[in-house]
Amino acid sequence: MGLIVQKFGGTSVGSPERIMNVATRVIEEKNRGNNVVVVVSAMGKTTDQLVSLAQEISKQPSKREMDMLLTTGEQITISLLAMALHTKGYDAVSFTGWQAGIETEPVFGNARILNIDTNRVNKELEEGKIVVVAGFQGSTIDGEIVTLGRGGSDTTAVALAAALKADKCDIYTDVTGVFTTDPRYIKDARKLSSISYDEMLELANLGAGVLHPRAVEFAKNYQVPLEVRSSMEKESGTIIEEEGRMEENLVVRGVAFEDEITKVTVLGLSNTLKSLSTIFTTLAKHHINVDIIIQSTTNKNTTDVSFSIQSQDIKDTLQVFVDHKEVLQYENIQFEEDLAKVSIVGSGMVSNPGVAATMFEVLAANDIEVKMVSTSEIKVSTVVEEKNMLKAVEALHQAFELARTAVKQ
Amino acid sequence: MGLIVQKFGGTSVGSPERIMNVATRVIEEKNRGNNVVVVVSAMGKTTDQLVSLAQEISKQPSKREMDMLLTTGEQITISLLAMALHTKGYDAVSFTGWQAGIETEPVFGNARILNIDTNRVNKELEEGKIVVVAGFQGSTIDGEIVTLGRGGSDTTAVALAAALKADKCDIYTDVTGVFTTDPRYIKDARKLSSISYDEMLELANLGAGVLHPRAVEFAKNYQVPLEVRSSMEKESGTIIEEEGRMEENLVVRGVAFEDEITKVTVLGLSNTLKSLSTIFTTLAKHHINVDIIIQSTTNKNTTDVSFSIQSQDIKDTLQVFVDHKEVLQYENIQFEEDLAKVSIVGSGMVSNPGVAATMFEVLAANDIEVKMVSTSEIKVSTVVEEKNMLKAVEALHQAFELARTAVKQ
Repeated sequence: MGLIVQKFGGTSVGSPERIMNVATRVIEEKNRGNNVVVVVSAMGKTTDQLVSLAQEISKQPSKREMDMLLTTGEQITISLLAMALHTKGYDAVSFTGWQAGIETEPVFGNARILNIDTNRVNKELEEGKIVVVAGFQGSTIDGEIVTLGRGGSDTTAVALAAALKADKCDIYTDVTGVFTTDPRYIKDARKLSSISYDEMLELANLGAGVLHPRAVEFAKNYQVPLEVRSSMEKESGTIIEEEGRMEENLVVRGVAFEDEITKVTVLGLSNTLKSLSTIFTTLAKHHINVDIIIQSTTNKNTTDVSFSIQSQDIKDTLQVFVDHKEVLQYENIQFEEDLAKVSIVGSGMVSNPGVAATMFEVLAANDIEVKMVSTSEIKVSTVVEEKNMLKAVEALHQAFELARTAVKQ
Repeated sequence: MGLIVQKFGGTSVGSPERIMNVATRVIEEKNRGNNVVVVVSAMGKTTDQLVSLAQEISKQPSKREMDMLLTTGEQITISLLAMALHTKGYDAVSFTGWQAGIETEPVFGNARILNIDTNRVNKELEEGKIVVVAGFQGSTIDGEIVTLGRGGSDTTAVALAAALKADKCDIYTDVTGVFTTDPRYIKDARKLSSISYDEMLELANLGAGVLHPRAVEFAKNYQVPLEVRSSMEKESGTIIEEEGRMEENLVVRGVAFEDEITKVTVLGLSNTLKSLSTIFTTLAKHHINVDIIIQSTTNKNTTDVSFSIQSQDIKDTLQVFVDHKEVLQYENIQFEEDLAKVSIVGSGMVSNPGVAATMFEVLAANDIEVKMVSTSEIKVSTVVEEKNMLKAVEALHQAFELARTAVKQ
C-alpha cells in the first residue's frame, strides 16, 4: 500500500459542487489501494473576501491578525471536504495546520516550515482514514497561527509528502500540466510531459504560476516526485522529478513571465566591501524578496546598484531604506514601476552559448527595450516594460520553436 | 486597576462598521483604567451561511466537522476586532478558544468547559494589551476543536471572567437589558434594573433569549456579577447578581416563552424502579436536553411518561428509542409538535400559593389548553399550542401587572 499526498487549489474547491468532485478524485486514489492525505486551499474567492473585510477595517492590518483571519479559509474547506467524503461513505478526518503538526518559524504572513510532527496524521492513516489537511498554514512553537505566504498550500503538500515519506505528491490545479509558456495568454503553448526540479524551479520562480518555487525546492531537497495535473480532466499531467524523462533534447523548454515588477536603483552607495551585503541582509530581514540584482563597480568612492522586486513590496522597501539610511549609506533611491520579467528556461542551455544572444536579437527585432538582464546555467531573464511582456513571450516562444514539437505522453 | 470581561454577540459585530463601534465600547472601558478581555461571536449571519454550505454537501454532517467549520466564524471576528482596536491606536491581540486555554470535554457540538489555563491571556493583559477571545469554542486535551453549543459565547465570557477573577462580566447584546417579557413581541414589556441569578436562570432557561442558562449557572457558581446591556445604546442595562437590588417586591417578575417544543409520550413503559432513570440517562448520553417531565403512576405493570424537548431533537430522540428498545422496555412512543412553553418567574412566588392558580385561570379565560405543567419554587411553566403562545404571554403579562411598575434605575 502506497501513500499519496494530493493538493487541490482554490479553484478546484471553489463551490460545494466542486468539493464533491474533489472527493471523487480523492476516492479514486483511495480505491487504488493507497493511503491518501489531501491538502486543500481556501475556496475560490474566500481569501479575497476576507482581505476585503480586513481592508474595510484597517488600511494596514497587523500581519498576525491577517494570518488569524486568512487561516479560516482553509479551515472551512477541510471541514467541507471531510463531510463530502463521509457522504460518499469514506472515513475521513480534517486537520488545521497546527493539528497536523506543521510547526513553522515565528514569521507572520510568510513563515517557513521548520518541522512536521506526523504522529497525529499517521495515527489516522493507520486507522484507514483519509486525512484532509489545511494548506497554507501552521503554528509556531508558542501556539501562534501563521500562514506560509504565497503558494503556501503547495508547500504544505510537498512538506507533508516529504515528512510522511509519501510515494508521490499530486498537485491538482486548474491547468492540465506545465506548459512551454502560459496557455492562458499564448495559444501555441504546449504541455510538457516531464521536467526536472531545476527547470521547474526556474519556471516557477519566473512566474509560471502553477507551482510555488518553495514547494519545488522542498520536493527537490527531499526527492519527492511531483505531478501537476488537472482537477477537472482525467488526462495525465506533467511529472517533475530529478532527471525528468526528457522527451526531446530541447535547448529552451519554456518561456516564463511575470508582471508587476518594480526596479529599484540605489544611487551613491558607499563603495565598501560590506555595502551590498548590508542592503540585501536588511531587506531580507524585512522579508522583501529581491530577484535580479545588477551592479557594476566604478572607480569612484560610491557605486550604484539596481534590483527588482514585486511591485507590492515597493512601499515596504522604501520604508526600509528611509528607516536605515545611516546604516545603508546611500545618497538617493529611485524606482521604476510597471515592468515585467520574461525568461527562457532549459537545462540544455548550458552547452549552447548562443541562446542569450538569440533572445536579445528577438527582443530587439520586436522593438522591446531590455531594462535588466540576469542569467543562470539554465535560464536567461530580462526585465522589460509591462506593456511589451506578451509581445516578448510570443516572439520568444516562436523563435525557440516551442510550439512545434509533438507531445509525447 | 480592575478587570472587565465584555461579550459582544453576533448582531453587535455584524459588519465592519459595527466592529468599529464595538472597538469604541471596548476602548471606553480600557480608558476607565481597566484591563479588558473581549469575547465575541461570529458576525451576524456567518454561522447560518456556514451551516448552509455544509448542508449543500451533507444532510447530516459529522459533528466534529461542523465544529471545525463553525469555529471559523468567531476566528474571523476576533481578528477583525483586534485590527479595529489597532486602527484606533490600542494594543490588542486575538486568541482562538484553544489559544486562550479553554479546555473542554470531548463532545462535539455541545461541549462543556472543563478548565481554563489563563497563563497566555494573563501574560498579554500584564503587557497592557486588550485581549480578544473567540467565543463559543474550545479544544479538548487531545487538540480537537469543539464548540460549546447554543449560547456558547456567553458561557465563554462568564467562564473567562471566573477564571481570570474579573470584577464584572458585561454581556452586550441587541436589547437594552432583561425585560418582564420579550419586548419584540409584547409592547408593554418593561426593563428590569436588577434580577437574581436564580430568576435569570429561570428566565434564560425558559427562553428569554438574552443570556444562555449555562452562562448564568457559571456566573452563579463563581459569583461573577453580570450586566446585560445594549451594544448600541449607552443606557445601563440589567444587573444580575446574588441577591439582586430588588426594585420592588414583585410576586412575578417576568413571563418567558419558547416555541418549537415537542412533547414526547412513551406508552406502556415497564413499571420498574429503574425504568425512568434508564430513559433519561440514555437520552442524556445522546445529548438530548429534556425539559419538563410528567409521570403519574398507575396500578398496572406498565406506566406512561411524557416529556418535552426542543423540536430539533425529535429525530435523534426517536432514533435513541428505536436503537435501545430492548433496554428501555416500552410499547409505543407518540409525539406532538408545534407546541410552546410559557412560564411565569419570580422569587416572590414561593410565599404566594395562589400564583399557579391565577395562571391557569388566565389561560382558561383565554381558551388556551394547557398540555403540560411544571413548577419550581420560583416558576410555573405550561406547555400550550404554539399558535396560542403570544396570546398567553400577553394575558399573563397583563394579569400580573408587569407593565405598570415604574422603572427604578
